[in-house]
Amino acid sequence: MKKMRAFSRLQLPSIAQFSDVSRSWQRTFASHAAAQQASEALVYKRHGHYSDVLQLEKVLLPLVGDEDIRIKMLAAPVNPADLNMLQGTYAILPPFPAVGGNEGIGEVLEVGSKVCDAKPGDWVIPVDAGFGTWRTEAVCKVTDVIPVAKDIPLLSAATLGVNPCTAYRMLKDFGTLKPGDTVIQNGANSAVGQAVIQIAAAMGLNTINIIRDRPNLKELKEKLKSLGANLVITEETLQEPEVTNLFKEIRKPKLALNCVGGHSAGNLLAHMEYGSTMVTYGGMAKKPVPVPAKSLIFKDINICGFWMTQWKRNNMHDLSKIKAMVAELAELVRRGQLSAPTCTQVPFQDYKVALDATMKSYSKKHVLMME
Amino acid sequence: MKKMRAFSRLQLPSIAQFSDVSRSWQRTFASHAAAQQASEALVYKRHGHYSDVLQLEKVLLPLVGDEDIRIKMLAAPVNPADLNMLQGTYAILPPFPAVGGNEGIGEVLEVGSKVCDAKPGDWVIPVDAGFGTWRTEAVCKVTDVIPVAKDIPLLSAATLGVNPCTAYRMLKDFGTLKPGDTVIQNGANSAVGQAVIQIAAAMGLNTINIIRDRPNLKELKEKLKSLGANLVITEETLQEPEVTNLFKEIRKPKLALNCVGGHSAGNLLAHMEYGSTMVTYGGMAKKPVPVPAKSLIFKDINICGFWMTQWKRNNMHDLSKIKAMVAELAELVRRGQLSAPTCTQVPFQDYKVALDATMKSYSKKHVLMME
Repeated sequence: MKKMRAFSRLQLPSIAQFSDVSRSWQRTFASHAAAQQASEALVYKRHGHYSDVLQLEKVLLPLVGDEDIRIKMLAAPVNPADLNMLQGTYAILPPFPAVGGNEGIGEVLEVGSKVCDAKPGDWVIPVDAGFGTWRTEAVCKVTDVIPVAKDIPLLSAATLGVNPCTAYRMLKDFGTLKPGDTVIQNGANSAVGQAVIQIAAAMGLNTINIIRDRPNLKELKEKLKSLGANLVITEETLQEPEVTNLFKEIRKPKLALNCVGGHSAGNLLAHMEYGSTMVTYGGMAKKPVPVPAKSLIFKDINICGFWMTQWKRNNMHDLSKIKAMVAELAELVRRGQLSAPTCTQVPFQDYKVALDATMKSYSKKHVLMME
Repeated sequence: MKKMRAFSRLQLPSIAQFSDVSRSWQRTFASHAAAQQASEALVYKRHGHYSDVLQLEKVLLPLVGDEDIRIKMLAAPVNPADLNMLQGTYAILPPFPAVGGNEGIGEVLEVGSKVCDAKPGDWVIPVDAGFGTWRTEAVCKVTDVIPVAKDIPLLSAATLGVNPCTAYRMLKDFGTLKPGDTVIQNGANSAVGQAVIQIAAAMGLNTINIIRDRPNLKELKEKLKSLGANLVITEETLQEPEVTNLFKEIRKPKLALNCVGGHSAGNLLAHMEYGSTMVTYGGMAKKPVPVPAKSLIFKDINICGFWMTQWKRNNMHDLSKIKAMVAELAELVRRGQLSAPTCTQVPFQDYKVALDATMKSYSKKHVLMME
């Protein structure tokens, strides 16, 4: 196996490989084949278009060590970031050979002799990006995963670890939002956007949700409102002078969440409260956020970014914070306050269908089902 | 006198009038003329071009109350913000009639019976914007001014209260800079820029100073280096690939100071350290700062603004912090580590010359001399 370069915070945003901290995907491939379990995995050994580089292969699993667990993957989404990793354009990349997929839900099959906080039958999700979730089985350290209660729907568990976590942290960590405060977001129909609407509603926050105009606008507005959105406005309406009337019935936003960039982000700035914060977590428009000096100087607006992967890494030394977040999100699911995004389930073997669909449109999540 | 609206933090960045907190300019005009001192003042009663609205008038001063002082203005700069206030385009505006000028140095002539921390002969500078420094004498509360030691040059004292304070706070309050760390700034030849170079050098920080190409480039580079600049680079050089070689001998910037905006600010972003901060305190190019999503998400760069007037107001309840800053800056002047920007001295009566020159070019500071 290729030796890994040390992952350095300072290497970002150039492409960085994962650190030599033990992570499950390093253990994907057994060094010798001695009475080991086998797994089917979507493996790539060079970067490129997934149809050229990704192959379903049978790989042998390493033996389960004292602090290891063996898990059976149940379901794993295909996310845009997974495709960027395959292409080699994401900010972090695993060394080759690598298994695709960063998110998913697995069931514990076997635990090492020194493992006490996991038992066969438990559900777990990867704690970090780069797990390689597109496979039927994996052997990893028990600290590479977080437990998830089994009384929530499988698809909610499979999609809990990235987008809802991103929404949760952005609502919790930037400014101190109190019930009655307002959050404005663009790309409100994204998986993160839908999680923001639901978690914000559970926190007693108002949300102003900006979406692009589209043929099924009315239907989409109703869907987002059913999730708890207070206002759903198109990009075009946001630029009309009359939109200020909408802000009479709702407080001005203390927090703006931006996953689009360009003019869409600039339009959010115009409506933000004095001293508020805009968090950028995506750049779908592939255009910079245009920030007027007066917003910074006279309106004291703070512009920053959020990357879930980095947050998890910053908190890897103490998993309790990550576990608490996942437990709280699972509780919201249990109470009916947080639903999984609309998913299309695709049998694992038909992975090309899921990758094709994700490549064409980010709007609907496809989930590989391992059984 | 026109009743003032309450100044609210939330009104920014729309034009706001000053608060009803007692400030000296409210006391510019005596309500009745009973044996009072007179002053000559540059008064305006409506917004517009200074040549249309500004007039040199004789005004009677209010009597000196128990907690008041009477001061003789010695020198007062003409700054671009003063012109914006006259035009009515600045973020805060005094009520009419108003006296122009926000910065300057005065000598105490007379103190009220309850004033113990000022005596005749002391030098003082205004604590807040809107003082109305373009006049020969003023009566104000003793808390409206900050003492400045008299053993520094008059022009240093006259120009200490705004630009060096802005430079000082930006270097002290955004990130924790340690000796050996690097600051990058554009508009490095501005009055704030020159103060940044000198205060940073006194703090043991490196500075990378970006300026526009110009005929006297070599001369300007040498001047800024004589102030303590480590590197002086043109905007054009900053965009060349070879510029990265310069960063091998100096740490990557943890702090960027932007008074230009547009591409100039965008170019700074490309060279900043992971987790660093860009502070915007001006927008000379009148174009937004274009912030790429990857700078925010993967490079964890924070974008914020600074406005000295707001900082002073936030700290008005306890003048000790403002006094300590002014005392520390005066000590740098005394040690020869902080010099006044190049100033042209203009007799008070020739104010139109100074305003004309400031309107045409921001590059050289003009100071009205009252005697």
